[in-house]
Order: sequence, then C-alpha cells, then structure tokens
Amino acid sequence: MTTPQFDVIAIGNAIVDVMAPAEDTQIAQLGLAKGGMTLVDADRAAELYAAMGPAREISGGSAANTLAGLAALGAKCGFIGQVADDQFGQVFRHDINAGGIAFDTPASTGGAPTAQCLIFVTPDGQRTMNTFLGASQYLPPEALDDTLIASAGVLYLEGYLWDPEEPRRAMRKAIAAARAAGRKVAFTLSDSFVIARHGDDFRTLIDAGEIDILFANEHELASLTGREDFHEGIAALEAKVPTLVVTRSEKGAHAVSGGEHAHVAAEPVARVVDTTGAGDLFAAGFLFGHVRGLPLGECLRLGAICAAEIISHYGARPEADLADLIAPVIG
Amino acid sequence: MTTPQFDVIAIGNAIVDVMAPAEDTQIAQLGLAKGGMTLVDADRAAELYAAMGPAREISGGSAANTLAGLAALGAKCGFIGQVADDQFGQVFRHDINAGGIAFDTPASTGGAPTAQCLIFVTPDGQRTMNTFLGASQYLPPEALDDTLIASAGVLYLEGYLWDPEEPRRAMRKAIAAARAAGRKVAFTLSDSFVIARHGDDFRTLIDAGEIDILFANEHELASLTGREDFHEGIAALEAKVPTLVVTRSEKGAHAVSGGEHAHVAAEPVARVVDTTGAGDLFAAGFLFGHVRGLPLGECLRLGAICAAEIISHYGARPEADLADLIAPVIG
Repeated sequence: MTTPQFDVIAIGNAIVDVMAPAEDTQIAQLGLAKGGMTLVDADRAAELYAAMGPAREISGGSAANTLAGLAALGAKCGFIGQVADDQFGQVFRHDINAGGIAFDTPASTGGAPTAQCLIFVTPDGQRTMNTFLGASQYLPPEALDDTLIASAGVLYLEGYLWDPEEPRRAMRKAIAAARAAGRKVAFTLSDSFVIARHGDDFRTLIDAGEIDILFANEHELASLTGREDFHEGIAALEAKVPTLVVTRSEKGAHAVSGGEHAHVAAEPVARVVDTTGAGDLFAAGFLFGHVRGLPLGECLRLGAICAAEIISHYGARPEADLADLIAPVIG
Repeated sequence: MTTPQFDVIAIGNAIVDVMAPAEDTQIAQLGLAKGGMTLVDADRAAELYAAMGPAREISGGSAANTLAGLAALGAKCGFIGQVADDQFGQVFRHDINAGGIAFDTPASTGGAPTAQCLIFVTPDGQRTMNTFLGASQYLPPEALDDTLIASAGVLYLEGYLWDPEEPRRAMRKAIAAARAAGRKVAFTLSDSFVIARHGDDFRTLIDAGEIDILFANEHELASLTGREDFHEGIAALEAKVPTLVVTRSEKGAHAVSGGEHAHVAAEPVARVVDTTGAGDLFAAGFLFGHVRGLPLGECLRLGAICAAEIISHYGARPEADLADLIAPVIG
C-alpha cells in the first residue's frame, strides 16, 4: 500500500449558504423544524427566501466545511461534489480552491442551479436549514475517480448526500474503492431526519464493517441505535465501529476507539452567534488529529477548539487562523 | 408642495460585495491602492478574485447601504439602480426588499452581469475595494420616474456612480426633477479618486446651489477644496452648501448648517473588524435625524452610532437593530 497523496477526500453537497437572523416566531409561522435540515423544492425555497430578512452568502455544505477546516489546519484535501455553471457555483468553487483544496468535478450545464441552503439563525444561535439541492443531487457516480479515492488516507462522506439517488450510488462506489485500496472510510450522520429516512442503510453499512470512523451528535446516536440513554447508545455501537465520535453541544464530546474512551468539555465561547457548522468543524479538528496520529483525547480537543471558533461568528467556514488556535495543543 | 411619500430616494450602484481578509503584503503584491476604490474590468476582476482568499458575499453599494441603514431606523425609502437577471442580481434585490425598501428598476437581460466589489480587508479593518461595475454602469436615464423623485423629501446621490456616463446623465435628470419639485438634494463625494476625475462637475453643482446636503470625509474635503487644512476646507464650502457633513474616522465628525457648527466624537468600538460602509452608515444616521428635524448635534450623534455598528463586523449592511441602538438619543 502506497503512502496516500491526500489526507482526506470528501464527497458532499456543494452548497452556498444564504443566512439571515430570524425570530422564533418567524420559524413557527413558516412551519420550520427548528434546529433541523429540511429538503425543499424550488418553489418552497423561493417562498422561504422571500420571507427571509437581509442575508449574507457564505459557502457551505457539511463535508466541504469539514475540508475547509482540515485544510486550514494543514491537511491535504480534495473535494468531490456537483455545482452548476452559475454565480453560486463560481463562489463555491472559488472558496474551496482558495482554501487550498483540490476540486475537479466539472460544473453541470443547462440543468438545475447550484444548491442553496436557506438558514434562519435564531437569537439563541441555533440554525434552521432549508436545503434546495439543485445541481448537488445530480453528482453522477461516473464523476468519481477510483484512483483519486485510493490516493487519500481517509474517505469522508456526508450523510445529507445519502438522500438523492445518484450521489448515494456515487458514495457506495467510493466506499468500495476506498476499502479495496485499504483506506479508511469516515461517515457523518448529519441529521436525525436523514437517519429516519436512511437509518437501515446506515445500520447495514456499520454492521458490515464498512465505516471506520463514525461522527454523530447525541440525537443522531439515539435515532440510529434506538437508545434514548447516551451511554446505552455508545455501548450499542462501539463494538461495530473502530472509531466512534459523538458530540453533545455544550456538554462536550465523547469518543471510543479500540475500547479506549475519551471525553472533552466544550471549549468556552464568549457568545454563540451561529451554530451552523459546529459539527462539521468538530469533525475537522478530530480528523486532523486522527490523520496526524494524535492520542484520542487530543483529537477531541482539536475538534472542540475548531467547533468553538465556528460558532462565534456567522457562517460555517473558519474566520480565525485554526492552525494558530490549535498550536498550544499539538505543540 | 405636497407631503413627500418617501423620506429618501437614492440612486446608486447595485453591487454585491465579495469580501475576504488579506494581509498588507498581499495588497502590495497585487498593486492595490490601500483604502481606496478602484474600477476594474472583467479580466482584472477575475485576476483579483483568483488571488483572494475564501470570501463571503453581502449586498453592498454605497447609497444602497445608506438606505439599508435608513430603513432599519424607520425611514421610508426607495432605491434606483441597475442589476442584471443573475444570482447576484437576485441577492441584491432580495436584500433591498427584505430591508423594506422599494426597488422597481427592472433587471437588465443579456448584457453585463450584476456589479461586484472585491474587497480586501486588512487586519487594521481597512477595506481596499475593486469594483467591476457590470450592469450598474448601464442604468439608463429613462429608468428614472420624475414623479417618484418628486415624491421623496430627499434625493440621495452616490458620487461613485458619477463615473459611468449613463448613470451620470440619470443623476443630472434626477437633480432637476427633485429641484423642480422643491425637494432637497443630498450628495456623497464617495472617494478622493472620484473627485480627481469629476471634481469640476461637483464644484459646478455646488457653486450652482444644486446640492443641499453634502457628505464628505476629510480627504475628500481636501481634494474638493484644494485645502489641506480641515478648517480651511470647511470654510471654503460652508457658504455654498446649506448642510455640510464631514467625517474624520476616529476623530469623529463635523457638520455646518446655516452657520451653526456641531461636532461629535467617534463612538467607541470594541474592535474594528471592517470599515466597509462606515461613511455610508454615518450618512444613514445623519439623514435619519435630518428628515426627522432633529438638532444638528443629534444628527451627527446618530451618524456616529450607526457607523460604529457597521465597523464592528464584516459587511456594510447592519446586523444589530439600529433603531434600538439610537433609541437612547431620540428618546
């Protein structure tokens, strides 16, 4: 097995986030599931956008956010995802490339526009996401290069992208390519509603030993395992997943790897502005420690530091120099 | 003369700001004029964008920023400017409308894209702007409705838009319509480089008594009057302009109206993040006080409060509730 050329290759939604502050009353009036991610069609997206206050646009997408964090920390990364040849597609590609991440999936032409996620951020910092998948849902399995997948130490997959059929087939193909090359497969469960739709698929993958590193928050852990109790949920999965990482918002995070348990407290934040991307950046910090071979507790600590940075401002892409922030930990 | 239906109608660039942090060394390497606004063509815009780090997109445009502030404070506003029928045009229109501002100029089709301003923000908070005018420079004089102009107490014009020929003709037409209806004309000088190109036009307008309210910063005042000394610059203009407002960054601002002088200190800011829009929001606060008939010193104070809000975060559109912020002043 050759030394991997990339630390992490990720497959995920190629999305531009359109975010605006909102009151809880507006979330209720619009019939939104606060704190969750809902898929919307073009008409509903237009309706929600019309109801939204003045907004700002920042590149997003769960796995892409994680790569932005990983690259800022110093990892060598590549992204696979589908944009259209429109202005948001240009914005997404620019931001990925400007972060030093390889991204060669060609833009689609003449079809659906680049994906947008309409995010309402309430005063408590929680984000309520409404995703119009657009071009992102048409990522064809043929866009995958098995050689590229085999060239990365870790293949990272975004659960959100399990919804549309073509990317799901692409991700199944990628898992096979990674495993054939002896690489690790990391998977983030993304959202409880996604688990409600695709939990059987996820449990099948896990039972078959196809997931080496699993990221979940405590709600997703409960949805996937059917255990309300956090420790019972961990116990139900730890024998099946070589590395299990569960985030618990202000209660910190927990990881189990090869029988070893580790816990980290949440990193203090002066003011939680917008929790969009908290889990994505936690995964970035953890994975960076993992690919560098750091102890489990330090991987968690890097995750907590990166998550704290992202929730202190609008948007799910880092503003501060993450490498500076983690320097005291990695020495 | 009937009571105006709008407090302020503004004519300005319809621009989406694309902003990213940058180091001073990058500003130098790219040959940019730090702190200024440079007009760029499509090729140079593409070159600068490629050199730019991961960015965020927030609606901008000097006069549009001022209206966003005015509307947030409670004024009734309308905007006139040219966008194209592309995603940035939709973003610009959404943000203007979501702020409660009337905006009926139809999008152009098949021509230049919506204007973009590539803004490099250095660690000292200063912004270096590179504007690709795109559709904005083709605002046709025919897009102006004299009845609409006559329906506003104040017509507000952006100096930046004096560069391209068609909008300049449109603004001359608007000045005539406003004056014929007995309305006030407010003008912001925008930039020293604009004055270098069009100072003669501006001085002619002022000498003819066509500008009722003039906004400038101290550098623009010096460029326009040819007087390096601040007080000499004020003295050279105060007899020609009914209301003159000059901002001086951290030194506060000065206004003269009908022989009365007033000064305000800069409002304290915990950390200057990005000065983009500082002058625009100062104008918003001042004009709001002016249309409400407040004393000159209070108008300045409202300007200082709004400017302080905008420089405490990225982007030139308000994040905090400006009406709340000024409540202690207006009672």
